[in-house]
Amino acid sequence: MASATQHPNHQLISSEDVEGTEVYDMAGKNIGEVDHLMIDKMSGRVAYGVISFGGFMGLGHSHYPVPWGALKYDTSLGGFRTNITEQQLKDAPEFSDDTWGDRDWETRTHKHYAAPSYW
Amino acid sequence: MASATQHPNHQLISSEDVEGTEVYDMAGKNIGEVDHLMIDKMSGRVAYGVISFGGFMGLGHSHYPVPWGALKYDTSLGGFRTNITEQQLKDAPEFSDDTWGDRDWETRTHKHYAAPSYW
Repeated sequence: MASATQHPNHQLISSEDVEGTEVYDMAGKNIGEVDHLMIDKMSGRVAYGVISFGGFMGLGHSHYPVPWGALKYDTSLGGFRTNITEQQLKDAPEFSDDTWGDRDWETRTHKHYAAPSYW
Repeated sequence: MASATQHPNHQLISSEDVEGTEVYDMAGKNIGEVDHLMIDKMSGRVAYGVISFGGFMGLGHSHYPVPWGALKYDTSLGGFRTNITEQQLKDAPEFSDDTWGDRDWETRTHKHYAAPSYW
């Protein structure tokens, strides 16, 4: 699986390599990996990481969109760290393919995770 | 090939779909397509589009990194528009896999294309 650790000294990562980058909780436990990113076409800002949370076993979905502001790249881990909990994912606003264009859903989701908006 | 036109009303695009998005010159001629993006892991900003310029036949390379600021998403085209010319690509600072971590190369490249820096 592609990983950001392939070029540990590089600030830049290919969109092809970001898929598979590991995600850790605040205790350093591996809780999942990046499936893909959602990117704002106009501004060029990453808006969400869609994360596969294999490390949380009680979840109803396999993939959850997480605001970029709730993910912090940690060079020592070679992956992203987040303070998001399993309970927060369970309580998150419902999402579907149509919610990407829905600013109301985006606002509620960012508020839920206490993440700064990207827009 | 995946294309940004799959969800024309969506501001957001998956990192998996951005590969293959078409690139046009200022006259609306198709000059290539996005191969992949280079993303700043820390800030979550797209730094470069690595473009396959199939529409320019006289180029020595097949792929060129283009500063994000030199690409503008055009919803009417369903792709990116750029004012970069074939001659500019030929005259661009030399690049390799090692240049991604080289701020001097980045500065010269952005100056060459008269693009605003992302950092």
